[in-house]
Amino acid sequence: MIADTPKPPYYAVIFTSLRNEKDAGGYAEAAARMLERARRHPGFLGFESARGGLGISVSYWRSLEDIAAWRRDGEHRLAQRQASRWYDAYRIRICRVEREYGD
Amino acid sequence: MIADTPKPPYYAVIFTSLRNEKDAGGYAEAAARMLERARRHPGFLGFESARGGLGISVSYWRSLEDIAAWRRDGEHRLAQRQASRWYDAYRIRICRVEREYGD
Repeated sequence: MIADTPKPPYYAVIFTSLRNEKDAGGYAEAAARMLERARRHPGFLGFESARGGLGISVSYWRSLEDIAAWRRDGEHRLAQRQASRWYDAYRIRICRVEREYGD
Repeated sequence: MIADTPKPPYYAVIFTSLRNEKDAGGYAEAAARMLERARRHPGFLGFESARGGLGISVSYWRSLEDIAAWRRDGEHRLAQRQASRWYDAYRIRICRVEREYGD
Protein backbone atom coordinates (compact mmCIF):
# COMPACT_ATOMS: atom_id res chain seq x y z
CA MET A 1 0.00 0.00 0.00
CA ILE A 2 1.05 3.58 -0.62
CA ALA A 3 1.51 5.24 2.77
CA ASP A 4 -1.07 7.89 3.66
CA THR A 5 1.36 10.46 5.02
CA PRO A 6 0.47 13.97 6.27
CA LYS A 7 1.31 17.29 4.67
CA PRO A 8 5.11 17.84 4.62
CA PRO A 9 7.47 18.47 6.23
CA TYR A 10 8.05 15.08 7.81
CA TYR A 11 10.92 12.57 7.61
CA ALA A 12 11.72 9.42 5.65
CA VAL A 13 14.20 6.60 6.23
CA ILE A 14 15.09 4.97 2.90
CA PHE A 15 16.54 1.50 3.54
CA THR A 16 18.04 -0.04 0.40
CA SER A 17 19.41 -3.58 0.65
CA LEU A 18 20.79 -6.58 -1.19
CA ARG A 19 19.76 -9.79 0.57
CA ASN A 20 22.02 -12.80 0.70
CA GLU A 21 20.44 -16.25 0.30
CA LYS A 22 20.62 -17.15 3.97
CA ASP A 23 17.96 -17.74 6.61
CA ALA A 24 14.86 -16.64 4.65
CA GLY A 25 12.52 -17.72 7.46
CA GLY A 26 14.41 -15.95 10.23
CA TYR A 27 14.67 -12.83 8.11
CA ALA A 28 10.95 -12.71 7.23
CA GLU A 29 9.99 -13.21 10.86
CA ALA A 30 12.35 -10.50 12.12
CA ALA A 31 11.22 -8.05 9.41
CA ALA A 32 7.54 -8.56 10.26
CA ARG A 33 8.22 -8.21 13.99
CA MET A 34 10.24 -5.01 13.49
CA LEU A 35 7.50 -3.45 11.34
CA GLU A 36 4.87 -4.34 13.94
CA ARG A 37 7.03 -2.76 16.62
CA ALA A 38 7.82 0.37 14.54
CA ARG A 39 4.09 0.94 13.94
CA ARG A 40 3.55 1.32 17.67
CA HIS A 41 6.52 3.66 18.12
CA PRO A 42 5.85 7.38 18.72
CA GLY A 43 6.02 9.44 15.53
CA PHE A 44 5.61 6.54 13.08
CA LEU A 45 3.63 7.80 10.05
CA GLY A 46 3.74 4.97 7.51
CA PHE A 47 5.73 2.32 5.66
CA GLU A 48 6.26 1.19 2.06
CA SER A 49 8.29 -1.76 0.86
CA ALA A 50 9.20 -3.51 -2.40
CA ARG A 51 11.74 -6.12 -3.40
CA GLY A 52 12.98 -7.21 -6.81
CA GLY A 53 16.69 -8.04 -6.84
CA LEU A 54 17.14 -4.92 -4.76
CA GLY A 55 14.94 -4.24 -1.73
CA ILE A 56 13.70 -0.76 -0.88
CA SER A 57 11.79 -0.02 2.33
CA VAL A 58 10.77 3.47 3.30
CA SER A 59 9.46 4.35 6.75
CA TYR A 60 7.99 7.78 7.45
CA TRP A 61 8.35 9.66 10.73
CA ARG A 62 7.22 12.88 12.35
CA SER A 63 10.70 14.05 13.42
CA LEU A 64 14.41 13.23 13.50
CA GLU A 65 14.05 12.68 17.26
CA ASP A 66 11.45 9.95 16.65
CA ILE A 67 13.82 8.26 14.18
CA ALA A 68 16.70 8.45 16.66
CA ALA A 69 14.51 6.98 19.43
CA TRP A 70 13.38 4.12 17.17
CA ARG A 71 17.00 3.44 16.27
CA ARG A 72 17.81 3.06 19.98
CA ASP A 73 14.85 0.74 20.69
CA GLY A 74 16.13 -2.43 22.38
CA GLU A 75 14.61 -5.07 20.08
CA HIS A 76 15.45 -2.95 17.06
CA ARG A 77 19.09 -2.80 18.14
CA LEU A 78 19.18 -6.57 18.43
CA ALA A 79 17.87 -6.82 14.86
CA GLN A 80 20.42 -4.23 13.66
CA ARG A 81 23.23 -6.34 15.08
CA GLN A 82 22.01 -9.34 13.07
CA ALA A 83 21.78 -7.37 9.81
CA SER A 84 25.11 -8.63 8.45
CA ARG A 85 23.66 -12.17 8.53
CA TRP A 86 20.93 -11.21 6.07
CA TYR A 87 22.41 -8.56 3.79
CA ASP A 88 25.30 -8.50 1.37
CA ALA A 89 25.05 -4.72 1.41
CA TYR A 90 22.69 -2.04 2.62
CA ARG A 91 22.37 1.71 2.73
CA ILE A 92 20.27 3.87 5.05
CA ARG A 93 19.39 7.44 4.11
CA ILE A 94 17.68 9.83 6.50
CA CYS A 95 15.67 12.47 4.64
CA ARG A 96 13.42 15.43 5.24
CA VAL A 97 10.36 15.22 2.96
CA GLU A 98 9.77 18.71 1.62
CA ARG A 99 6.99 18.22 -0.93
CA GLU A 100 4.54 15.50 -1.85
CA TYR A 101 2.07 15.05 -4.68
CA GLY A 102 0.32 12.23 -6.45
CA ASP A 103 -2.83 10.75 -7.85
CA MET B 1 22.32 -1.93 -7.50
CA ILE B 2 22.60 0.31 -4.47
CA ALA B 3 23.31 3.85 -5.71
CA ASP B 4 26.78 5.18 -4.96
CA THR B 5 25.72 8.64 -3.80
CA PRO B 6 28.01 11.38 -2.45
CA LYS B 7 28.22 12.71 1.08
CA PRO B 8 24.93 14.42 2.06
CA PRO B 9 23.24 16.80 1.69
CA TYR B 10 21.71 15.92 -1.67
CA TYR B 11 18.13 15.25 -2.78
CA ALA B 12 15.93 12.22 -3.39
CA VAL B 13 12.70 11.74 -5.33
CA ILE B 14 10.77 8.77 -3.92
CA PHE B 15 8.27 7.55 -6.51
CA THR B 16 5.85 4.97 -5.07
CA SER B 17 3.32 3.41 -7.44
CA LEU B 18 0.68 0.76 -7.94
CA ARG B 19 0.72 -0.47 -11.54
CA ASN B 20 -2.45 -1.46 -13.34
CA GLU B 21 -2.35 -4.51 -15.63
CA LYS B 22 -2.28 -2.53 -18.85
CA ASP B 23 0.37 -2.08 -21.55
CA ALA B 24 3.31 -3.87 -19.87
CA GLY B 25 5.48 -3.51 -22.97
CA GLY B 26 4.83 0.19 -23.47
CA TYR B 27 5.41 0.84 -19.79
CA ALA B 28 8.72 -1.06 -19.64
CA GLU B 29 9.99 0.72 -22.74
CA ALA B 30 9.02 4.18 -21.46
CA ALA B 31 10.52 3.47 -18.02
CA ALA B 32 13.84 2.38 -19.53
CA ARG B 33 13.91 5.37 -21.87
CA MET B 34 13.17 7.82 -19.04
CA LEU B 35 15.92 6.34 -16.85
CA GLU B 36 18.41 6.55 -19.72
CA ARG B 37 17.42 10.19 -20.24
CA ALA B 38 17.52 11.05 -16.51
CA ARG B 39 21.06 9.63 -16.26
CA ARG B 40 22.26 12.21 -18.76
CA HIS B 41 20.48 15.10 -17.05
CA PRO B 42 22.56 17.62 -15.05
CA GLY B 43 22.66 16.83 -11.34
CA PHE B 44 21.61 13.16 -11.62
CA LEU B 45 23.41 11.18 -8.88
CA GLY B 46 21.88 7.71 -8.95
CA PHE B 47 18.80 5.49 -9.13
CA GLU B 48 17.35 2.54 -7.22
CA SER B 49 14.21 0.59 -8.04
CA ALA B 50 12.25 -2.40 -6.75
CA ARG B 51 8.80 -3.78 -7.42
CA GLY B 52 6.73 -6.32 -5.54
CA GLY B 53 3.01 -5.52 -5.50
CA LEU B 54 4.08 -1.95 -4.81
CA GLY B 55 6.81 -0.28 -6.86
CA ILE B 56 9.35 2.05 -5.29
CA SER B 57 11.87 3.98 -7.39
CA VAL B 58 14.24 6.49 -5.88
CA SER B 59 16.30 8.91 -7.95
CA TYR B 60 19.02 11.02 -6.35
CA TRP B 61 19.89 14.58 -7.39
CA ARG B 62 22.37 17.31 -6.56
CA SER B 63 19.77 20.05 -5.99
CA LEU B 64 16.07 20.95 -6.04
CA GLU B 65 16.77 23.02 -9.16
CA ASP B 66 18.06 19.91 -10.97
CA ILE B 67 14.88 18.03 -9.98
CA ALA B 68 12.69 20.90 -11.20
CA ALA B 69 14.58 21.04 -14.51
CA TRP B 70 14.22 17.27 -15.01
CA ARG B 71 10.50 17.55 -14.26
CA ARG B 72 10.20 20.14 -17.06
CA ASP B 73 12.16 18.05 -19.61
CA GLY B 74 10.07 17.67 -22.77
CA GLU B 75 10.15 13.86 -23.14
CA HIS B 76 9.70 13.46 -19.40
CA ARG B 77 6.57 15.65 -19.52
CA LEU B 78 5.14 13.48 -22.29
CA ALA B 79 5.70 10.41 -20.09
CA GLN B 80 4.15 12.18 -17.09
CA ARG B 81 1.00 12.85 -19.11
CA GLN B 82 0.72 9.13 -19.88
CA ALA B 83 1.16 8.09 -16.24
CA SER B 84 -2.57 7.60 -15.61
CA ARG B 85 -2.53 4.86 -18.28
CA TRP B 86 -0.05 2.79 -16.27
CA TYR B 87 -0.77 3.48 -12.62
CA ASP B 88 -3.77 2.93 -10.40
CA ALA B 89 -2.15 5.28 -7.91
CA TYR B 90 1.20 6.93 -7.33
CA ARG B 91 2.88 9.27 -4.90
CA ILE B 92 5.96 11.44 -5.42
CA ARG B 93 7.93 12.74 -2.45
CA ILE B 94 10.76 15.26 -2.81
CA CYS B 95 13.28 14.92 0.01
CA ARG B 96 16.51 16.38 1.25
CA VAL B 97 18.90 13.57 2.28
CA GLU B 98 20.52 14.67 5.53
CA ARG B 99 22.49 11.61 6.60
CA GLU B 100 23.61 8.35 5.03
CA TYR B 101 25.26 5.23 6.38
CA GLY B 102 25.56 1.59 5.47
CA ASP B 103 27.70 -1.45 4.96
